[in-house]
Amino acid sequence: MYSIAVSGHFMIAHSFVGEVFGPAQQLHGATYAVEMEVRRSELDGSGLVCDIGLAKRLLDEVLAAFDYKNLDELREFRGRNTTTEFLAGEIFRRLKPRIAAGALGPDTAGALASIRVTLRESPIACAAFEGPLA
Amino acid sequence: MYSIAVSGHFMIAHSFVGEVFGPAQQLHGATYAVEMEVRRSELDGSGLVCDIGLAKRLLDEVLAAFDYKNLDELREFRGRNTTTEFLAGEIFRRLKPRIAAGALGPDTAGALASIRVTLRESPIACAAFEGPLA
Amino acid sequence: MYSIAVSGHFMIAHSFVGEVFGPAQQLHGATYAVEMEVRRSELDGSGLVCDIGLAKRLLDEVLAAFDYKNLDELREFRGRNTTTEFLAGEIFRRLKPRIAAGALGPDTAGALASIRVTLRESPIACAAFEGPLA
Amino acid sequence: MYSIAVSGHFMIAHSFVGEVFGPAQQLHGATYAVEMEVRRSELDGSGLVCDIGLAKRLLDEVLAAFDYKNLDELREFRGRNTTTEFLAGEIFRRLKPRIAAGALGPDTAGALASIRVTLRESPIACAAFEGPLA
Amino acid sequence: MYSIAVSGHFMIAHSFVGEVFGPAQQLHGATYAVEMEVRRSELDGSGLVCDIGLAKRLLDEVLAAFDYKNLDELREFRGRNTTTEFLAGEIFRRLKPRIAAGALGPDTAGALASIRVTLRESPIACAAFEGPLA
Amino acid sequence: MYSIAVSGHFMIAHSFVGEVFGPAQQLHGATYAVEMEVRRSELDGSGLVCDIGLAKRLLDEVLAAFDYKNLDELREFRGRNTTTEFLAGEIFRRLKPRIAAGALGPDTAGALASIRVTLRESPIACAAFEGPLA
Repeated sequence: MYSIAVSGHFMIAHSFVGEVFGPAQQLHGATYAVEMEVRRSELDGSGLVCDIGLAKRLLDEVLAAFDYKNLDELREFRGRNTTTEFLAGEIFRRLKPRIAAGALGPDTAGALASIRVTLRESPIACAAFEGPLA
Repeated sequence: MYSIAVSGHFMIAHSFVGEVFGPAQQLHGATYAVEMEVRRSELDGSGLVCDIGLAKRLLDEVLAAFDYKNLDELREFRGRNTTTEFLAGEIFRRLKPRIAAGALGPDTAGALASIRVTLRESPIACAAFEGPLA
Repeated sequence: MYSIAVSGHFMIAHSFVGEVFGPAQQLHGATYAVEMEVRRSELDGSGLVCDIGLAKRLLDEVLAAFDYKNLDELREFRGRNTTTEFLAGEIFRRLKPRIAAGALGPDTAGALASIRVTLRESPIACAAFEGPLA
Repeated sequence: MYSIAVSGHFMIAHSFVGEVFGPAQQLHGATYAVEMEVRRSELDGSGLVCDIGLAKRLLDEVLAAFDYKNLDELREFRGRNTTTEFLAGEIFRRLKPRIAAGALGPDTAGALASIRVTLRESPIACAAFEGPLA
Repeated sequence: MYSIAVSGHFMIAHSFVGEVFGPAQQLHGATYAVEMEVRRSELDGSGLVCDIGLAKRLLDEVLAAFDYKNLDELREFRGRNTTTEFLAGEIFRRLKPRIAAGALGPDTAGALASIRVTLRESPIACAAFEGPLA
Repeated sequence: MYSIAVSGHFMIAHSFVGEVFGPAQQLHGATYAVEMEVRRSELDGSGLVCDIGLAKRLLDEVLAAFDYKNLDELREFRGRNTTTEFLAGEIFRRLKPRIAAGALGPDTAGALASIRVTLRESPIACAAFEGPLA
């Protein structure tokens, strides 16, 4: 199995609801360093998993929806805790249909097996979501 | 599949038995930078794989048994080479029953799928152990 | 010249005032990975710049005043942009009197030459402040 | 499952054929930081996945065939784009028979399950290939 | 003294002339991960060393002149070895007049003290150039 | 001012004497990731601070005296605490005369200004020594 991965980052404010979050119930924020890994069993005719320029553009486009935002004010996250693991899953759910629609190349969509989205939130903590594309 | 990972470290002395170890048969030591990754297929009601504060506390607690020790003098390691890969497995074996006993939250134990323990021993070498929790 | 450095981190929300900040005028946040470097021309009798345990405790104590906070709501920052470089200077200004008061050891204060505080805010940006202790 | 990983690097020139590569169609180059991860379900009698010294030597030996070369001039790559993902697969294909021939120890070959080869080409991009050894 | 630093990277091919370079006399290449650190004794009215967005844009603009190039073919480098330390100096020499011309903000030029340009060429080697702006 | 830096590492056991060291009074160990930075105001005729191959060899040679050792048993360290900062200074003191004797090239010795030796002992702690070569 082949894979390629590209990186980006975004900076947000948010707060959490629930005693389990302790001081993180206060409005605070984070820099998330993000890696999107894309997997494919065979390379295409150019020797690629996919166009890495398109992969970087797609990731940056998806992250731009969050960057410099207060996630508590985004309608789509109302009533949800935007934990690191939730955000990893959410980024996956936004990448998947765009990839299916050809964002990584028109002939690439059907050939890709799965993706993994990793978010590092601090030197001692990160989270990830991994799922199939098919 | 979702995952979260937390990091810690410990510093130990030890020596190895066997010609395969070359100069590492002498008493020497290492800093191990450790990452514990915990996996779960669905998030809990708070949007979590598990309480990351509990995860950090559990990892630090398990690592404390080794930190600032000469592993050659620990009774439980008598007759064993405390290689990086062995230590990764040993840390897994110490984490597993504590997680089963609720160290990551009383309702979390049954929901977690697996963990991976990675130990970096130098800029050019690391080892890991990965196994199921169920 | 000898030096030692210890690391910590904190996570905050804030916003900036001024067109120069573009989208960062919106409420957003950051994880700051912090390094405090302490310099001294001669080691003490134990072979130390200072007790590294005290250094880590001092840094964590100073960072705790910001961690999980919305800096826009802190009285001491009213009317100021809490940029990364400002925060590096601010942390220096909080460390300096505590070191003078013996936080790194009663006999250490007079012997230390200078400190440098570095804050990494993202994979592509960091800031620092460096100043004398005497 | 246990694993160990060792690191190395190599520096090459190359160019790519195909419009998808944009400016990378020009002769340029890269530093590839490489990690070889080797997996095994049970440790050997010494507590090892394999001799880490042999692993480092094997990786360096395989990378030496590329280091300080213009890949466009290597006969074996004629007509191929030496993309990062292709190179990860190519390094795997060169490691596999050497491991089968005992390069990681005569008794080790049959016990190893799989390897993963990761090449980091820049702070924002990497690629990998992973396959079975049996 | 305050400082901010921004990062970028570029990928080039080149070769060196002189026996001291050994195998690096062959055409090969490198990824250079670059950091530009800018220093200033007092922050401006917005709390900034300079607009970090402008700093990132300036660095990327200067690096674009090299990216995806064979440095052996660039007229300005004819007869020179484009070593990592030379390139660090060269990037400094290209940054300095642009900063003087206001690339980091019209009011900023005179206030900046110095810059340091660091180029990492591999996990085990980097080089830097540091000089005054005034 | 130009500089180049090369990296290496070593793994040792040791213990400390003095209550200030707390649990580090027990025999334990560390991996030290080392960087040697060499500074020079003008490049030589080849465009170099010094031959980076010689720099890497010199550093590895000096570190080899410690690697896989119990520092408590080395005669030269009797009665001393081999703290990270002390070791940084000690490595400097071993590098300096070798550089003066031509280890970085016969014509290089007089041209080099200073060196900085940095030892990272853990993800949260490092130490350095910096001094002139002349």
